[in-house]
Amino acid sequence: MNAASPNSDIALLAEVAEAVRLQEGEMGVRAILQAFRQLAPAPTRAISRRTGLPLPIVAAVGNELRSRGLLGQERPSRLTERGLALAAELGVELNLDPDCYRCGGLEIAIPSVLNEAVERLRRIMADGPNADVSLDQSLCTAETKVRRVLALIRAGVLPGGSVLLVGDDDLVSVAIGVVGDVLGVPLASRVGVVDISTDILDHIADTASALDLRVDLEQHDLREPLPQRLRGQFDAGMTDPPYTAEGTRLFLSRVVEGLKPGAARNILFSFGAKGTEEMLEVQQEILGLGLVTHGMIRNFNSYEGSGILAGTGFLQHLLTTASTASLVEGTYEGPLYTREKRSRQREYECVSCSARFPVGAGARWNSVADLRDAGCPQCGGGPFRPLQLVAE
Amino acid sequence: MNAASPNSDIALLAEVAEAVRLQEGEMGVRAILQAFRQLAPAPTRAISRRTGLPLPIVAAVGNELRSRGLLGQERPSRLTERGLALAAELGVELNLDPDCYRCGGLEIAIPSVLNEAVERLRRIMADGPNADVSLDQSLCTAETKVRRVLALIRAGVLPGGSVLLVGDDDLVSVAIGVVGDVLGVPLASRVGVVDISTDILDHIADTASALDLRVDLEQHDLREPLPQRLRGQFDAGMTDPPYTAEGTRLFLSRVVEGLKPGAARNILFSFGAKGTEEMLEVQQEILGLGLVTHGMIRNFNSYEGSGILAGTGFLQHLLTTASTASLVEGTYEGPLYTREKRSRQREYECVSCSARFPVGAGARWNSVADLRDAGCPQCGGGPFRPLQLVAE
Repeated sequence: MNAASPNSDIALLAEVAEAVRLQEGEMGVRAILQAFRQLAPAPTRAISRRTGLPLPIVAAVGNELRSRGLLGQERPSRLTERGLALAAELGVELNLDPDCYRCGGLEIAIPSVLNEAVERLRRIMADGPNADVSLDQSLCTAETKVRRVLALIRAGVLPGGSVLLVGDDDLVSVAIGVVGDVLGVPLASRVGVVDISTDILDHIADTASALDLRVDLEQHDLREPLPQRLRGQFDAGMTDPPYTAEGTRLFLSRVVEGLKPGAARNILFSFGAKGTEEMLEVQQEILGLGLVTHGMIRNFNSYEGSGILAGTGFLQHLLTTASTASLVEGTYEGPLYTREKRSRQREYECVSCSARFPVGAGARWNSVADLRDAGCPQCGGGPFRPLQLVAE
Repeated sequence: MNAASPNSDIALLAEVAEAVRLQEGEMGVRAILQAFRQLAPAPTRAISRRTGLPLPIVAAVGNELRSRGLLGQERPSRLTERGLALAAELGVELNLDPDCYRCGGLEIAIPSVLNEAVERLRRIMADGPNADVSLDQSLCTAETKVRRVLALIRAGVLPGGSVLLVGDDDLVSVAIGVVGDVLGVPLASRVGVVDISTDILDHIADTASALDLRVDLEQHDLREPLPQRLRGQFDAGMTDPPYTAEGTRLFLSRVVEGLKPGAARNILFSFGAKGTEEMLEVQQEILGLGLVTHGMIRNFNSYEGSGILAGTGFLQHLLTTASTASLVEGTYEGPLYTREKRSRQREYECVSCSARFPVGAGARWNSVADLRDAGCPQCGGGPFRPLQLVAE
């Protein structure tokens, strides 16, 4: 059984890819196999991060590999003897991590002088409001906040320039103040913050008053155009919008409204990676705004406790051009957040008996955890693997 | 004179930006001032690399700063007392380099086990053909070749997958063989190379025969569609095309023709950064091909002896989508290389007397170095700063 030919190995990979309808095909399964080979024993989250594939997909592929005896049942999992033999036959055995070990492949490393800033931000976060998941909020870690400030320094915006934060549940405004305080250098000439949440704005105001930080706070629904006093004022902008094409267009339009006119203004755009088709839509929106990509760092943003995106997102460095203009001049009325766009139920298949069940708001099981706890209503078994979203 | 107000400082920056018609405005001048503050004494090339601004622009801004007594006359230059005072007033004095010091902000660090591969590639390059500048060729360094192989490993293409190199004057095919040889692992199941130059193909064939490397060489003009036997065959593609929007469309179309059908195939695209307007055109071509950007590392590629681009270019990681298709189905007849698109003369202004002179092929001075050596024909002085290209 181990003497499989390369062709039957590839057929096996293609079979697994087909079983979970994996867009990335057999190369995606290969990448997951390789990641298990290199990182084992590895939690699903680590495999997702290494391969760039979404967590539920990695989980589903893992289940397929387990059902074929290639991956062990223990968690975190490692390849079985058969799995290792397959990895050897596929030539994915190389034990070499090309990511820079210092920065983890993130380009920017936090210098030790800023460890204190990370610590202080952690304490400030603990006192702040929680994330509102209905607004697609998931809070970035203290390290990510400091790295975002370093990215503004690297772009030449800080020290000395002005920054508009379009939405700031991530408290980047506070991070600019804390990093400046630790370095003993006032970093920004002006920090503008536009957010809908008075809880967040109050928290920023309280924290900023203890630092030497000039923040300009505006409670505002970003569906509405930027208030006149903030338009055309800033050297640079930053946003971590709702992770939809519509969220991208709207939030980046508001950023553009806030920037001083002219080309080559910096925008730092954070986003949770999606599948290739959704990314195509998002990138069409960015180009439609007349913005060019100047850099893009995968896994730059780490978020606390956001499962579906494997807790990371990229940072895209954008520049304005002569043709940059807001695409949403008036009030925006359409869908915006993931929950508004997305069907609320997904079909799950019992791996034991192949029966399929819808899971999610309005279905018999609210989450796959509920379904797992109850067991398959047909055969009493499981586990379950995610299929397509249910059309509404 | 040193007691300038912040407003007059900004006016000074704006004045310098205006003098060299700098797209990036006063923020660009600020970034250059900051880079001189941090790196001094620094050659123009280092300032260009740090700021991401093209070398001739940095040189012109440097001349403006010198003529205002802000930058010293010595080379490499550092800020004068007045320049330092201005930097302090602008708040750009921060001495903190956010780039990871291990990888230099390139995400990928060459592990010491591969130092031998770098050395061997350096020797192989010394035996190879020289770059053909009429084809926009400028050869990437041995370190860059190894980093490109590591990028293919990181993308999960290697080990085990197949790669098509659309143009390979950079000898990435050889680098795949050398890195595999040093690691003792055959890296690629197949390496396809399409190039117009028999010199390069012969050099690759000679080198590959000494390694355990299966290369599939095809002498071919990429203005023509990819030969049938190479179409739809490869897991991934790589190209470093002519640095024009047309070169991007044509070379990426040929890459796409060579890839196996399906989404999420990897393409690694190297390019020398241009101004924002040109980058907008290039990125429109990429999106027009139905390709999404998955990552983009600035300064990833270092080239030997290419002045105009400051010797570096970015690496953009692209993925195919369901709508990816070649945009150049037949023979391409249009302009392609920089020299075909670009006027061959640029106007230079004498900073002493403001007289203007065309410089370049067909003009009285072939290069600005010739003009400098001769001195200004009107006042005998100089230096000279670049203005617009001369329309043909």
